[in-house]
Amino acid sequence: MSRVRAAYAGIDAVDRPEVWIALRPEAEVQAEHDAALAAGGPLAGLLLAVKGNVDVAGIPTTAGCPTYAAGPAAADATAVARLRATGASVLGVANLDQFATGLVGQRSPYGGVRDARRPAYVSGGSSSGSAVAVALGLADVAIGTDTAGSGRVPAAFQGIVGIKPTLGVVSTAGVVPACRSWDAVTVFARDLDTAEAAMGAMAGGPGTRPWPADAPLAAPPGARVAVPDDLLGLAPAWAAGFAASVERLRAAGCTVEAISFAPFLEAARLLYDGALVAERHAAVGAFVDAHRDDPDAGLDPTVAAIIARAGSLTGSAMVRDLARLEELGAVCASAMAGYDALLVPTAPGHPTREAVAADPVGVNSWLGTWTNFCNLLDLCAVAVPAGTVDEGPAGPAQLGVTVLARPFHDAVAADLARLVLLAPEPVAAPGAAAPLPRPGVPWSVMAGASSVPLLVVGAHRRGQPLEHELTSRGARWAGTARTSAAYRLLALDTVPPKPGLVRAAPGAGGVGVVGELWQLPVAALGDFLSALPAPMALGRVELEDGTWVTGFGCAADAAASGRDISEHGDWVRYLEAVAAGG
Amino acid sequence: MSRVRAAYAGIDAVDRPEVWIALRPEAEVQAEHDAALAAGGPLAGLLLAVKGNVDVAGIPTTAGCPTYAAGPAAADATAVARLRATGASVLGVANLDQFATGLVGQRSPYGGVRDARRPAYVSGGSSSGSAVAVALGLADVAIGTDTAGSGRVPAAFQGIVGIKPTLGVVSTAGVVPACRSWDAVTVFARDLDTAEAAMGAMAGGPGTRPWPADAPLAAPPGARVAVPDDLLGLAPAWAAGFAASVERLRAAGCTVEAISFAPFLEAARLLYDGALVAERHAAVGAFVDAHRDDPDAGLDPTVAAIIARAGSLTGSAMVRDLARLEELGAVCASAMAGYDALLVPTAPGHPTREAVAADPVGVNSWLGTWTNFCNLLDLCAVAVPAGTVDEGPAGPAQLGVTVLARPFHDAVAADLARLVLLAPEPVAAPGAAAPLPRPGVPWSVMAGASSVPLLVVGAHRRGQPLEHELTSRGARWAGTARTSAAYRLLALDTVPPKPGLVRAAPGAGGVGVVGELWQLPVAALGDFLSALPAPMALGRVELEDGTWVTGFGCAADAAASGRDISEHGDWVRYLEAVAAGG
Repeated sequence: MSRVRAAYAGIDAVDRPEVWIALRPEAEVQAEHDAALAAGGPLAGLLLAVKGNVDVAGIPTTAGCPTYAAGPAAADATAVARLRATGASVLGVANLDQFATGLVGQRSPYGGVRDARRPAYVSGGSSSGSAVAVALGLADVAIGTDTAGSGRVPAAFQGIVGIKPTLGVVSTAGVVPACRSWDAVTVFARDLDTAEAAMGAMAGGPGTRPWPADAPLAAPPGARVAVPDDLLGLAPAWAAGFAASVERLRAAGCTVEAISFAPFLEAARLLYDGALVAERHAAVGAFVDAHRDDPDAGLDPTVAAIIARAGSLTGSAMVRDLARLEELGAVCASAMAGYDALLVPTAPGHPTREAVAADPVGVNSWLGTWTNFCNLLDLCAVAVPAGTVDEGPAGPAQLGVTVLARPFHDAVAADLARLVLLAPEPVAAPGAAAPLPRPGVPWSVMAGASSVPLLVVGAHRRGQPLEHELTSRGARWAGTARTSAAYRLLALDTVPPKPGLVRAAPGAGGVGVVGELWQLPVAALGDFLSALPAPMALGRVELEDGTWVTGFGCAADAAASGRDISEHGDWVRYLEAVAAGG
Repeated sequence: MSRVRAAYAGIDAVDRPEVWIALRPEAEVQAEHDAALAAGGPLAGLLLAVKGNVDVAGIPTTAGCPTYAAGPAAADATAVARLRATGASVLGVANLDQFATGLVGQRSPYGGVRDARRPAYVSGGSSSGSAVAVALGLADVAIGTDTAGSGRVPAAFQGIVGIKPTLGVVSTAGVVPACRSWDAVTVFARDLDTAEAAMGAMAGGPGTRPWPADAPLAAPPGARVAVPDDLLGLAPAWAAGFAASVERLRAAGCTVEAISFAPFLEAARLLYDGALVAERHAAVGAFVDAHRDDPDAGLDPTVAAIIARAGSLTGSAMVRDLARLEELGAVCASAMAGYDALLVPTAPGHPTREAVAADPVGVNSWLGTWTNFCNLLDLCAVAVPAGTVDEGPAGPAQLGVTVLARPFHDAVAADLARLVLLAPEPVAAPGAAAPLPRPGVPWSVMAGASSVPLLVVGAHRRGQPLEHELTSRGARWAGTARTSAAYRLLALDTVPPKPGLVRAAPGAGGVGVVGELWQLPVAALGDFLSALPAPMALGRVELEDGTWVTGFGCAADAAASGRDISEHGDWVRYLEAVAAGG
């Protein structure tokens, strides 16, 4: 059975009609899938669900309101087009909290979306259908959007991965805005490798925010991670689960310390309790104002009330709140200054659909406790499953945690998220593909961040005394490598001891020398070079496959006085031999 | 006579009481000046005027409204403190268009500020007193602010230099906001060297926008400059003056081409014709609303009307205008994509005070024609005098032109502005100091932009075939240099021919080799290295003064087979000798 057939069979079998706003005809998807497999590409064969506020050519973009779209979208949103161009096939358009306004997944005339495992509980939102489609194995990846947590809260409840990238690195062209200043397009997948591959394909393109030349490519070993000093009444079982995540980070060598979370929470409150919510009126307020009294328009009353009220806020009040946000941003940045990332619970608990119905605004607001501040403060985030919490007869809740990092530190967040991730038992997954292999580079590099290779053979190798000169500059280890058999390895008279790698004279015998490739942000390479002491030098080195990369050499005078240790072919083995008295 | 005495004598002599809102007691300034001279510092001894919306400790910050300040400022604004810390002494606080709302210099209860040379004409504003104080030689440098042109229009009329830096690189702490999203703190000086030195001292510090690792340090030789395709009815004599500026750029080797200015002008209109002006209400609207009916408050009626009206604009409308601005920003960025900078007239003409009184809003609006778009589009700008325009019996008008460049391209704008600048005849300048010497580095580097040195000895020297590999990466030539007398110079077998610089073996004779120092943005050094072909290498080279810098070497194998040409001591002289058959 083809994967497309299996997916459609699964869609029927799970009986979750509320997950979808529109499904494409199976034959059409099958044809697209077959063509994608034939063409290849990094995402070839993956099945994609798209949140209903993102354009898919030929399908009306309702944003969860049946009368909002004037007709089918003429073209794919940039994010959709980029995923399709790399091999993904669109199954259809998924349900959401109307106009992406909500974290519950219940504010939709297409139905409240039920949790994949515990149907009496909410799916989380606003990217509700996207997350549940992935959790149920109906889609391999899904596009979400996230302004206040809509790409993270449903990931947590559904036990899947949600990547909320740095603002602006994914195009929002073809996406119905929620709050345009803080909207991010996100991905969901069941595993981090697939999510990263999809994000790498989706990010970049016209109008996106360029990556700075020093964006780090990896979390450093022994990263420093901050956690909130107060979990704000998180239930004991949930707090225990969060503590276990902290312990996993510590076990992986990280330092974890508590910091005051008050400024982050104050920033969060600005998003909806102040005037910034005027952004929501700018986005869809004209439509809401015009149709609010029309019972056939399909407006969700909670959503319509929020948006209509936002229309009366003044620009002046908004600017004052932006000024306060900037002040809080400085406070939060300085709180994070000594840390590589922040770890928080993704959600404060998992409410039932009944609890949300009883208090639609209060519960929704509570759900944003650990997510609302993120986009306002220009942080990137990776939400991952982190085990389960026993909730008695209701069955276990999925526990999610989120790693947040400074803008353009997406690779740092992903590396640390990998350390805490605990994949849950999958839900029956009729159409699910095997996870993609881990991409060889961080997704930021696929999306345009600079990355230049550097061959090191001596004191900068992993575990050697100068490795930190690379890792502190955001470098990423990219594997062992060997030079072509044309080099001599010398022991130089330096402190710490360093090798000199020199190309053998023509006719003289050379050996292949063992080294490591590292990827560096281009600015880090310049910084590394400008701090490099004599007699070391950087130039071109030939690898055993015949390619040339930037790598270590040494000044000719130092080479002339170095001791030839080529027979070892490997600086570390030479050091071991010396240590062994050899 | 001390310079302070000369300045105070000049202040009395010129009889321009409207220039100042508050002058410090002469003895206090003299003491500060003496202490600054004794302490030294890059700006030691310069006399500074500060626009009245910027805090000076001990003086009320009126922002041009006598009742606005509750009392004297407790501390200097960051910009003032940084100038003082580097040796400038504050004379006093200068007049301005109230709340920095205007380009005319006439909207102030402290008096309309008259042009330095033609008193029937306006000074330009809103930094009116600052600019006239500098033009009259009463102050050496002055702090202005600029949201829509307030740091440029008065520079043009007064025949002085005004630097409007990239937004955020100078702290606005201690400055009364006009539109906080687009406010910049600026400097005025009679010459560009002094203005750059002051900007270098003033920029940077807590809360400022960090410089990207690839911010260019210089305009490339043969820069490409765009000019508007339509000068919008600029009077023929003014247009001729602008054309002469274009010719000076061409004579200096630049390519100048016309581009459509329509999107820039549309962006400009958003600043005041739409909802973005709500920023002005957020800044001082509470005060204006509370005092508007109080005739003793000292509110300028034109300014008060503008600000009060801005209070009723909705946040929703503002966000929609911001969205439109973002679209226009993309259009303008792509119009500028092939160019290093833009050259425009600074002002469309120089109105009389009478003309402004007859139509205070219309003339003011017209004056912003060539300035309003700049900050909205996140451009940096340098306004310079560019000769005079014959206006018959009224006497010659000062013609100003402005070079605009992308954010963080401040060094590019300054370099190109230097090419068009034509210093006017100074007005009698009783207290004026001699211009500071040109700083050895662009002011961006003084303010924190990265700059790493590179010694080149061969094909990357000025006029040699690979110079463009440096200049296209934003590198700046920093002078000739010579290695210590410990090197050998080799001719390598490369295309184009390149030298190999190697340190002589101990005991073997070495020579000092002639080269050039270049400054590179740190990211440019990484990029340059990662593109460097074998057998070239970069490492540490010792200069004749004993310091070590990053510089060119070569792989040991290439050195071994190179031909020793050390007797030439200079690659270019060697090439000349070869060409001469030597």
